[in-house]
Amino acid sequence: MRSVGVVVEYNPLHNGHVFHLTQSKETTNADVVIAVMSGQFLQRGEPAVVPKHIRAKLALQAGADLVIELPYSYSTQHATLFAKGAISILDSLNCDTVCFGSEEGKIETFFELIKNKKQHTSSINASIRSFLSEGMSYPSAYSIALQRNIETSNLDVSLPNNILGIHYLEAIEHFNSKMQGTTIKRIAANYHDEEATHQSIASATAIRKLLKDENNSISDFVPSFTKTSIEEYINEFEILHSWNEYLPFLKYRLTTSNFHELEQIYEAVEGLERRIFYSILKCSNFEDLMTLIKTKRYTWTRIQRLLTHILTNTTKNEMLSILEKDRVPYIRLLGMSKKGKTYLNINKKSIDIPIYTTINQDNINHLRTDLKATHAYASVLPLMSQQQLINSEYALYPIIFNEDENKFIRG
Amino acid sequence: MRSVGVVVEYNPLHNGHVFHLTQSKETTNADVVIAVMSGQFLQRGEPAVVPKHIRAKLALQAGADLVIELPYSYSTQHATLFAKGAISILDSLNCDTVCFGSEEGKIETFFELIKNKKQHTSSINASIRSFLSEGMSYPSAYSIALQRNIETSNLDVSLPNNILGIHYLEAIEHFNSKMQGTTIKRIAANYHDEEATHQSIASATAIRKLLKDENNSISDFVPSFTKTSIEEYINEFEILHSWNEYLPFLKYRLTTSNFHELEQIYEAVEGLERRIFYSILKCSNFEDLMTLIKTKRYTWTRIQRLLTHILTNTTKNEMLSILEKDRVPYIRLLGMSKKGKTYLNINKKSIDIPIYTTINQDNINHLRTDLKATHAYASVLPLMSQQQLINSEYALYPIIFNEDENKFIRG
Repeated sequence: MRSVGVVVEYNPLHNGHVFHLTQSKETTNADVVIAVMSGQFLQRGEPAVVPKHIRAKLALQAGADLVIELPYSYSTQHATLFAKGAISILDSLNCDTVCFGSEEGKIETFFELIKNKKQHTSSINASIRSFLSEGMSYPSAYSIALQRNIETSNLDVSLPNNILGIHYLEAIEHFNSKMQGTTIKRIAANYHDEEATHQSIASATAIRKLLKDENNSISDFVPSFTKTSIEEYINEFEILHSWNEYLPFLKYRLTTSNFHELEQIYEAVEGLERRIFYSILKCSNFEDLMTLIKTKRYTWTRIQRLLTHILTNTTKNEMLSILEKDRVPYIRLLGMSKKGKTYLNINKKSIDIPIYTTINQDNINHLRTDLKATHAYASVLPLMSQQQLINSEYALYPIIFNEDENKFIRG
Repeated sequence: MRSVGVVVEYNPLHNGHVFHLTQSKETTNADVVIAVMSGQFLQRGEPAVVPKHIRAKLALQAGADLVIELPYSYSTQHATLFAKGAISILDSLNCDTVCFGSEEGKIETFFELIKNKKQHTSSINASIRSFLSEGMSYPSAYSIALQRNIETSNLDVSLPNNILGIHYLEAIEHFNSKMQGTTIKRIAANYHDEEATHQSIASATAIRKLLKDENNSISDFVPSFTKTSIEEYINEFEILHSWNEYLPFLKYRLTTSNFHELEQIYEAVEGLERRIFYSILKCSNFEDLMTLIKTKRYTWTRIQRLLTHILTNTTKNEMLSILEKDRVPYIRLLGMSKKGKTYLNINKKSIDIPIYTTINQDNINHLRTDLKATHAYASVLPLMSQQQLINSEYALYPIIFNEDENKFIRG
């Protein structure tokens, strides 16, 4: 069975994602789609609008055959580590091809850039160091260093999905993986677009904005099952998760910690934790807080990721002991279709890392950080509803979907 | 000027407290009353129903001339340390007499017991150790050890205020203080009584219960200024502080900490922190939680104090570095009357520790734990209202009361 891998967040899953999923399968002639998906907290350092089990179900309904959790330790990271974690999982599952969406759309342009990049490694690194010392943020430094040192490239490295693509392909090389890389051009919506412009495609950002607006519907831009799931969640819990809901807990954590404790938090560097501490005393909402913290040295995303680590109490020691393994040493299977199950059976002999579904005594040491993330994620729900979410970690997974009858068998 | 000291919590201040205050002044012929008062968290390990600045104002209106904060590090402790902290403050302020309420009412009975107790120190300590090893709680072990070893005493050492009285008097001895001790008999309500039985006196516990009941009024049992203040607080913040409000924050703290971190918390012993961790996953309210945690080895109060330290993130190291000083090394002045101000002026040369009012760079190292307690206490308020409470630490104190005109000049 041929497999194609996609790296996703589905926050929430919309028509653009369905297009990407379908196209990935078609262009690679794949039998199964493996979706590596961020859990409760996302790459931009924010809580997902609905929990991972709901987003895993959406992925299965949209055509994914296996949904694997990208652990917190990789999902809440800059592009290099985010890509590395996802590629290591796909590689472990014998995935034939990873197919990523990009602004560029032609894989040759990526290979050409990477080839050029290797010839200029030392000058690129020198440029990055120099830009950083001038107070530039890392993503800007990286992007401009590429532009300055590889003048012949056709790849627009100022665009976020192109950058992520470079990192996927470099991760494949890093792991000496036999996996292929390919790309499809993203249509209509750009990642950060706040307004829905295209007839049926809007960015997840725009869709989340619509969700908050009672006079607008998301139905033009998402499959009906996304709409149904989200409406059910809102009806049951009266909440969509966003940073504003977590602000009281973030403030409580910050104001009852001493600076020595805050310095231990992953990504707390250069006194940024103190800046955050003093800022949160003055803010009345999350936007306020970010405005108070923001400087040109740190991207919005970089700050949000640190806030996420403070909220989840994720320390440098904890994170480094996970990351030093260089790859994700297990598969956390959130959901599968019938075909996905067959794929795992066929491949099980050559998958040489354990496949975890629920959390138990044997795997808790691997999954502790993700369990903690789910606890932090749950904190904004009423006490008894929190328990539902925690129970899901121990008993819900894997969700099983019968794609022929379009119904869930488990979960 | 002669001074009498009282050790109080005023949660909230009621008619019984006014009686105690008036009687203390009369029986000792004192000119000024010094009230040492617990701050945001109380001896029984719970948040005060309204913040300390409001309770300090009630104390001044009821006739106290100086209101001094008993620091968190002593206010949330078993009777020995609670008494020790309070007596050390009164001693530092050259207080002539401490006057405590007791079930007994005659000071001679206390002195007689203490004299006897000294002659049986080693057998009492042996009994305590033996009872503890049988799984008895410390207060029970202490009380029964006294009963078994001092059979001739007339003091009923099974009663909580009698026990506290012993500790006040022993603390006076410990510090070689020239302060006198005396007692007045508590009237009508026992400390833990849940129902209001007497015509105008009810326990603070009973009054807090009435506050939650819309069909009942507290006006029979509290001075009108207490009723006004509490109603104003409820109108402004729509909350009276109780453990149930703090439960989401306590749960968040517990579930995003690892056991190694929880073991560092003051009073976390014998795996009690794990028992609390697993209990909080199952509970839907505070009563539930306590029922799940409770064993005969630990008193309700002992568990609540540990929960308080978890909530405020107060560690063993932090607490021990404060307690090793043996006495409170400063006076935190929350409020004063005109007469209280005069008293301080007259005595200032012989008060050999600093008097702090607001928190600032010079005293933050002494007041950090109390500031953290105020932050934790504030966490249940809306974000902007939290700021009011935090600001009070930096700018509000001392509250100044003109007792002749019955009005506040400052605060």
